[in-house]
Amino acid sequence: MSSDAVRQAIDEGNRQFGEAVARKDYAGLAGLYTENARVMPPDAPIVSGRPAIEEFWRTAANAFGMTDAALRTVDVEVVGDTAYEVGEAQLTLGSGQAKVKYLVVWRRDRDGTWRLHRDIWNNMPPN
Amino acid sequence: MSSDAVRQAIDEGNRQFGEAVARKDYAGLAGLYTENARVMPPDAPIVSGRPAIEEFWRTAANAFGMTDAALRTVDVEVVGDTAYEVGEAQLTLGSGQAKVKYLVVWRRDRDGTWRLHRDIWNNMPPN
Repeated sequence: MSSDAVRQAIDEGNRQFGEAVARKDYAGLAGLYTENARVMPPDAPIVSGRPAIEEFWRTAANAFGMTDAALRTVDVEVVGDTAYEVGEAQLTLGSGQAKVKYLVVWRRDRDGTWRLHRDIWNNMPPN
Repeated sequence: MSSDAVRQAIDEGNRQFGEAVARKDYAGLAGLYTENARVMPPDAPIVSGRPAIEEFWRTAANAFGMTDAALRTVDVEVVGDTAYEVGEAQLTLGSGQAKVKYLVVWRRDRDGTWRLHRDIWNNMPPN
């Protein structure tokens, strides 16, 4: 696949991520990750595998009143069926807006879909 | 290169990272990163390129009284000249011990050395 095509697939994955958050579809959100993905949230242990990731997002979104996640790619590098993306996200939480940066390793899965395989983020400085 | 050889190169890189921190050698620390690496520290903007990374570590290590960083790999996956590592680190700071988890993308550089190319971390939960 060309880098442009991978970039488009990642854009589409990020769009679906935001949509799943907005409609509180945590099974759909977990389905954007590979089966053996790892999510590494701030102030929490590493979350491994789709069922645990679904539960994490459901619990975290409820706890923080998260109703929107707008993801913006800063750069992507592609290596075969793997890509890694640096990005920034604007989260709409019960307490207001939060801005984070993230590093995601994407994998092209057996069905050809690009999915999040490693996902970690932390806070941007307050404005 | 075999995965085992890459794993050894990453172990060696992590050992050198801890040594550079311990001897406050921030030029040496920056030299473990690729020229166009990005470091993504919590509560701070993205730091891009070796000179900025050297300055970041000097400033952060002084601000937090960091005297040791013990890195432990949780898993590594290798894709050609790229590898991504999930790990945990125990940091010795002026305020005491801090435990973080990290995701690092490593690149095999033109001189054959594996260097950190993307580096992000966040806190583990308090014990």
